[in-house]
Amino acid sequence: MCGVFGINGHDEASNIAYLGMHALQHRGQESTGLAAAEDGKLRRHVEMGLVSDVFDRERLAKLPGRAAIGHVRYSTAGSSELRNAQPFLFEYSGGSLSIAHNGNIVNAVELRAELEASGSIFQTSSDTEVIVHLMAKAREPDVLGKLVSALKRVRGAYSLILLTHDEKMIGVRDPNGFRPLVIGRLKDSYVLSSETCSFDLIEAEFIRDVEPGEIVVIEKGGLTTHKLPESVAPTFCVFEHVYFARPDSLVNGKAVYRAREKMGKRLAQEAPVEADVVIPVPDSGVPSAIGYANESKIPFEMGLIRSHYVGRTFIEPQDSIRHFGVRLKLSVVRAVVDGKRVVVVDDSLVRGTTSRKIVKMLRGAGAREVHLRISAPPTTNSCFYGIDTPTRSELIASSHTVDEINRYVTSDTLSYLSHEGMMAAVQSEDGKGYCSACFTGKYPVALGKEADLVQLRRARV
Amino acid sequence: MCGVFGINGHDEASNIAYLGMHALQHRGQESTGLAAAEDGKLRRHVEMGLVSDVFDRERLAKLPGRAAIGHVRYSTAGSSELRNAQPFLFEYSGGSLSIAHNGNIVNAVELRAELEASGSIFQTSSDTEVIVHLMAKAREPDVLGKLVSALKRVRGAYSLILLTHDEKMIGVRDPNGFRPLVIGRLKDSYVLSSETCSFDLIEAEFIRDVEPGEIVVIEKGGLTTHKLPESVAPTFCVFEHVYFARPDSLVNGKAVYRAREKMGKRLAQEAPVEADVVIPVPDSGVPSAIGYANESKIPFEMGLIRSHYVGRTFIEPQDSIRHFGVRLKLSVVRAVVDGKRVVVVDDSLVRGTTSRKIVKMLRGAGAREVHLRISAPPTTNSCFYGIDTPTRSELIASSHTVDEINRYVTSDTLSYLSHEGMMAAVQSEDGKGYCSACFTGKYPVALGKEADLVQLRRARV
Amino acid sequence: MCGVFGINGHDEASNIAYLGMHALQHRGQESTGLAAAEDGKLRRHVEMGLVSDVFDRERLAKLPGRAAIGHVRYSTAGSSELRNAQPFLFEYSGGSLSIAHNGNIVNAVELRAELEASGSIFQTSSDTEVIVHLMAKAREPDVLGKLVSALKRVRGAYSLILLTHDEKMIGVRDPNGFRPLVIGRLKDSYVLSSETCSFDLIEAEFIRDVEPGEIVVIEKGGLTTHKLPESVAPTFCVFEHVYFARPDSLVNGKAVYRAREKMGKRLAQEAPVEADVVIPVPDSGVPSAIGYANESKIPFEMGLIRSHYVGRTFIEPQDSIRHFGVRLKLSVVRAVVDGKRVVVVDDSLVRGTTSRKIVKMLRGAGAREVHLRISAPPTTNSCFYGIDTPTRSELIASSHTVDEINRYVTSDTLSYLSHEGMMAAVQSEDGKGYCSACFTGKYPVALGKEADLVQLRRARV
Amino acid sequence: MCGVFGINGHDEASNIAYLGMHALQHRGQESTGLAAAEDGKLRRHVEMGLVSDVFDRERLAKLPGRAAIGHVRYSTAGSSELRNAQPFLFEYSGGSLSIAHNGNIVNAVELRAELEASGSIFQTSSDTEVIVHLMAKAREPDVLGKLVSALKRVRGAYSLILLTHDEKMIGVRDPNGFRPLVIGRLKDSYVLSSETCSFDLIEAEFIRDVEPGEIVVIEKGGLTTHKLPESVAPTFCVFEHVYFARPDSLVNGKAVYRAREKMGKRLAQEAPVEADVVIPVPDSGVPSAIGYANESKIPFEMGLIRSHYVGRTFIEPQDSIRHFGVRLKLSVVRAVVDGKRVVVVDDSLVRGTTSRKIVKMLRGAGAREVHLRISAPPTTNSCFYGIDTPTRSELIASSHTVDEINRYVTSDTLSYLSHEGMMAAVQSEDGKGYCSACFTGKYPVALGKEADLVQLRRARV
Repeated sequence: MCGVFGINGHDEASNIAYLGMHALQHRGQESTGLAAAEDGKLRRHVEMGLVSDVFDRERLAKLPGRAAIGHVRYSTAGSSELRNAQPFLFEYSGGSLSIAHNGNIVNAVELRAELEASGSIFQTSSDTEVIVHLMAKAREPDVLGKLVSALKRVRGAYSLILLTHDEKMIGVRDPNGFRPLVIGRLKDSYVLSSETCSFDLIEAEFIRDVEPGEIVVIEKGGLTTHKLPESVAPTFCVFEHVYFARPDSLVNGKAVYRAREKMGKRLAQEAPVEADVVIPVPDSGVPSAIGYANESKIPFEMGLIRSHYVGRTFIEPQDSIRHFGVRLKLSVVRAVVDGKRVVVVDDSLVRGTTSRKIVKMLRGAGAREVHLRISAPPTTNSCFYGIDTPTRSELIASSHTVDEINRYVTSDTLSYLSHEGMMAAVQSEDGKGYCSACFTGKYPVALGKEADLVQLRRARV
Repeated sequence: MCGVFGINGHDEASNIAYLGMHALQHRGQESTGLAAAEDGKLRRHVEMGLVSDVFDRERLAKLPGRAAIGHVRYSTAGSSELRNAQPFLFEYSGGSLSIAHNGNIVNAVELRAELEASGSIFQTSSDTEVIVHLMAKAREPDVLGKLVSALKRVRGAYSLILLTHDEKMIGVRDPNGFRPLVIGRLKDSYVLSSETCSFDLIEAEFIRDVEPGEIVVIEKGGLTTHKLPESVAPTFCVFEHVYFARPDSLVNGKAVYRAREKMGKRLAQEAPVEADVVIPVPDSGVPSAIGYANESKIPFEMGLIRSHYVGRTFIEPQDSIRHFGVRLKLSVVRAVVDGKRVVVVDDSLVRGTTSRKIVKMLRGAGAREVHLRISAPPTTNSCFYGIDTPTRSELIASSHTVDEINRYVTSDTLSYLSHEGMMAAVQSEDGKGYCSACFTGKYPVALGKEADLVQLRRARV
Repeated sequence: MCGVFGINGHDEASNIAYLGMHALQHRGQESTGLAAAEDGKLRRHVEMGLVSDVFDRERLAKLPGRAAIGHVRYSTAGSSELRNAQPFLFEYSGGSLSIAHNGNIVNAVELRAELEASGSIFQTSSDTEVIVHLMAKAREPDVLGKLVSALKRVRGAYSLILLTHDEKMIGVRDPNGFRPLVIGRLKDSYVLSSETCSFDLIEAEFIRDVEPGEIVVIEKGGLTTHKLPESVAPTFCVFEHVYFARPDSLVNGKAVYRAREKMGKRLAQEAPVEADVVIPVPDSGVPSAIGYANESKIPFEMGLIRSHYVGRTFIEPQDSIRHFGVRLKLSVVRAVVDGKRVVVVDDSLVRGTTSRKIVKMLRGAGAREVHLRISAPPTTNSCFYGIDTPTRSELIASSHTVDEINRYVTSDTLSYLSHEGMMAAVQSEDGKGYCSACFTGKYPVALGKEADLVQLRRARV
Repeated sequence: MCGVFGINGHDEASNIAYLGMHALQHRGQESTGLAAAEDGKLRRHVEMGLVSDVFDRERLAKLPGRAAIGHVRYSTAGSSELRNAQPFLFEYSGGSLSIAHNGNIVNAVELRAELEASGSIFQTSSDTEVIVHLMAKAREPDVLGKLVSALKRVRGAYSLILLTHDEKMIGVRDPNGFRPLVIGRLKDSYVLSSETCSFDLIEAEFIRDVEPGEIVVIEKGGLTTHKLPESVAPTFCVFEHVYFARPDSLVNGKAVYRAREKMGKRLAQEAPVEADVVIPVPDSGVPSAIGYANESKIPFEMGLIRSHYVGRTFIEPQDSIRHFGVRLKLSVVRAVVDGKRVVVVDDSLVRGTTSRKIVKMLRGAGAREVHLRISAPPTTNSCFYGIDTPTRSELIASSHTVDEINRYVTSDTLSYLSHEGMMAAVQSEDGKGYCSACFTGKYPVALGKEADLVQLRRARV
């Protein structure tokens, strides 16, 4: 996953963008970057690492100008290369152009083959680069025209922020509106961001979402709005509500925290159990666990503590420690669970390995019973619109029943939230307006060939 | 503050000590270090920074041996110097000696002056170094004798772990037992640590506390116990329960989480209020907020989110953001507090500046009323036994009434837990067995001259 | 300036290339890079800095394969950017391609404009990139055909080494043969390099020069030779003999050391002077000073010492030191020059500022007379074929007579070697076979527009 | 070996000291450090590495004050530890004290044992530390008295610079005057340095040597001179002339360059040979090779080139290259030696391994005959007064005749300069005034026990 941020019309644009990206850090911890425009020149810096480690006063001073865009990128196994770190910076006939992308272009592989055949040279393994090549080849005279022309060829999920050498900032969201993109105002400048939580940090005012299929152009203090030609029924990613977005953000107009709490409440109705204590898997499981506890009247406790100091890779002793990886991140409060019947609420169960370790740690600390409750339906399919779910074969729910999973993770009982329950929590009982392909396999935008999808995974942003 | 850890009798001693220190990271984030003994030689590495940043596989490989001790140190303004980072490593007539200290020697300044007058040379500005000089001058032939002789001269708080070049590991706790020190067992090796949470990570078994005034010597697989000559009534630091220790630790034989939850319950009894929601200041305020919510029957919610990515110093825009420092660390979930009467539970209120910012942020997010509840009594005095409270003049409660503080932090109401309430939570209604000098000004070990105390502050570990 | 190196058919290709580049370090100290091919994949690492600082065992281990090419690049003021560091790595319809270039394409600006107009996107400000774009657009099916097609459009100086993902290594030299490129043999593998000195280090055998206009393709243990269609009279850069190449190299079939010594001898004949001692400006002036001393029978001494430790930028005291920059690099041996009439032999005088400082330092150390002798003609014109001479306006000889320069540098007498004298030293009395445009302004390959040349300077390799 | 530098009375003391140390870099490349005094406080920074790598503007700005001392230290195998990097900084009853030492205390081991027995704690394995402990124990009230008292106990070689917290700078040289120490003047400030070459860089005026057994105290703009009680005949290290000092320095009142040239001349008289060319082993062999060439009328040429870019450790291919280490540092100019009878002049032959490699490289480049001439006598004994000669068993001349060595290094002939020849070059035909123990085994200051000497080697500065 990724997060994008942009500001235009502020004397300290790169400082503000740096803070905006810091607030989006949960959307990507692998690499980060900033590009800023001044006097007809774009400058950029990208590096592997966290926003607060990569940028300091000196670095930011080298990115002067009143317009800046930034990007954070998720750490995935295969494609962790600096050359894929965004924003990208290109020089083409239109001048210099910087681009930051959240999402995934599903027909990138075939477009790339076509572009290479006509003489294009690629610098990255990222799907984002095809957009810029299409723009470079477009015959339209201005950058907006080139962008619209390019996006006509492109299929999939994209929330983009572009910045030109002459300080034009453009935000665009694909017609389905898979990924969020919001508009804010900070004094005389406009800001764009993946999530509203970054507005809260910099004290910007939230104005509205960029609409699915909308293009906003921000220059010289003004914002103009345009439409992509294609128009479809929007399908916002429900997983942003379930897990990805920060609980203090509004996404798609709804408070993330409240949606999660409702998922927990509904889960308590759908899958009640006799127990002594409800504990969350922190931090993301906290709101749904509170919802479950309140609905079930079982006391809520913080029975698992999340460490603040999990950094880089850890050295594991040769004489290996049980559940080492999970232990470094989570520790059990024995006083909370010892001798108790425990309900553990988590927001997802992907491969099952982490849940299994948590269940064992809880039993090791004396829990008499462990009832696992997942505040979303079983994850049965991969996402090709920007979320980093593993391949289908790694998703335990793609090939096992709930009973089988329960036996694997060694919980006493295991229940998932129903699809209707999840949709009710985001106020869409019929599922309209949302993509829930990872739970249903119903992909709202046609995917390409199987081989292409495999290749796409490696370049996901 | 500081944390200490030691292991003797394990093939991967420094690897294990590294993990042990990682689990103690909350006790000190400024510097960290490790010393290990092999073949009659002590090696050490100390560096400014977090355990996981300072040590990697290569570094640890340079610290071979079956015995290792480690230290983490808190970041204080004045004395952030590498030369004060522990464990210290000294060469003296007894060979090589490494030492890690948690606590504060209150007569260090006068002892140092006396030692310098007799020709001793000091390398650090740390109070710990006087202990080693006293040992070097002692006439006793063996290291245990030298240590006892030295500690006879020393007054104050010390939980020490020493390691000699010939793999003798010694743990000692001052007669008052201010700071914790626990003994565990990992297969054939003994481990010592400031807190039991490090035993949980490495899967060691908790055996017992080192007793106040006890010296344990661990060598060749065996543990022998000795007594310091001085014997006084123990006064364990109550602030370890209130704030400092990790909630999943047992300190002084009691579960920290449960004590905090009881403080919250009692606070709800002592200072009830009509409200819609109880929220903690995360992470340390969570258990007491849960206690308050359960007792008061007001719903518990996570209305403040703590960021995982607060690293180094942050660049603040010139055009400054209100409550910038707090905002980077904490953000408000508007959906939880908007239009609500909010109870905020925190574990301490030191200068009042942070609380004031939190109150303002909550009101900014729409809170109708903000009731601040502190799960400890007012902090009126500095600690000279190892906790990094600021000087008295900076403690708002040393010179202001609760009413005045309430007005300063702009809360609707402000209440503290009573001293009896706090003591009840640690099962000592009469306050016996505990030092609560920071709340009462009753110092169980006589302090020295005022000027000396000022100097001591700079060298605190 | 730059240096290029390649090896194909060796189990430790990147290790050998690393050593080869180390021997070419004098050709470029700004950035360095390596690309290696294995299993159909090209990997590369480029970084600002010296070969020995950038690469270590770990880095080299990440560049496996039996074929590798490398590049070192000179530090020029404007274009010191990592993105211009070579070898470049591109993905295009033909697969992956890596390229290292020594020289300068004089029509790069117009080619770039044309390519951008047709939709090409540029990643660097380097002239080298146009070659790859032309290759990507070429219709020929194989890489050799694409390369020939591209080079038909290109004008200027290029000694190139290319490496494809499938371990084909190609060396090519422009029809004029401005820059050197030599072929060697190391056991079963072929090596290509800018200079023979790198063969000496790795114990490779020197075979022959790549001919002007020749393309050599090395794959599967064999070397095949091809010709560029254009054929002109070769014009090898005489400045490689005068200054640039290492004295232990053979360039263009001639020993550099001997050519320089002859320049010194001839200079003594052309511009004799009564003096007590001949001293060189080390290191490059040593052979010509020896030649001058032997011919003139004036004793040779090392009156100037060159520091081995001049690293990064130096901190100059505010209360500034006279001739600070030169002093850090060179120091005078007072015992050699005090009271003496001194002949100083240098190989070039560009702006005159350094020579002026040297003259003053010598006088400050007691020299009675200082006679400056330059073992080349006056530098009157910029180079556009790869050497980093400053712009014409900075060349003191472009606007001043020898007399005026003598007065400026404050020497007692100043003489340059004649053009014929220089040419005689490289065994070409008539100047045939050589480019000496920097001394004559006669450019053997037509330059483009003035504005383009200015832009070219910034991207020189 | 080491170099020391100090300045007192300059607004930019640490900047100047940094430059002074840069000029002394040849005396030690392992570690470097600076200490500066301001407002009663001493600050210091030491680090492994070269002066220009360790210090930058920011670092120097953290060392404010008008007095500063610096140190560079040689890289030896055993004791390369940061804790041994100087200047040391101590706190003792007299306040704070910084000390930089060039030389070696021969009775350090026994003094250390005695001090530890009385309770002293050692921080380093350096012999220098005993001086400070002796000072800390001294009863004299002032620092000069303490120093004199301490030095009464100390035996061996020491050129020391001390700096106190209150800006008193003290220079002292042992009664034998083994190591150099010179006094200079820079405007209103006094400077002390190991060699005059550092005065040339900073434009300070050379005043005089500190005399053997002299103590100079510099404070408040004035210099006072004192005498150590012990008085002996001075024995200045002749090896400083032969190899160690920079050729542009005056040591012991004599120009190093001239002495080396005379050694070469004398060597040509003592050991003439029919040959075609004389080449030096650069850089240190250059002046003596010039002397040899001039005397013998055989042409001088630079047949070996020294690389400027030999940095860190190099990666050697597994399929190892002959004479790899020497090749990286030196390369042969084939044009100079091919088909020739070559005289190679070097200043020392220690183990014989490097000379052997050079001879083989020369033959590999076509030399018909190789005659090795060493401009000093055979090195038969270790130095215990500060020079880093290996142990006796590693010195080939300690156990082999010149004939045997000639056969080992595979030269056609090998000759050394005679002891008288060397002494004549430093104007002391009878050898008076010099220590030449490394050539004769006559140690002017009694050494201690064998075991102590072994231990001393590890801590040499």
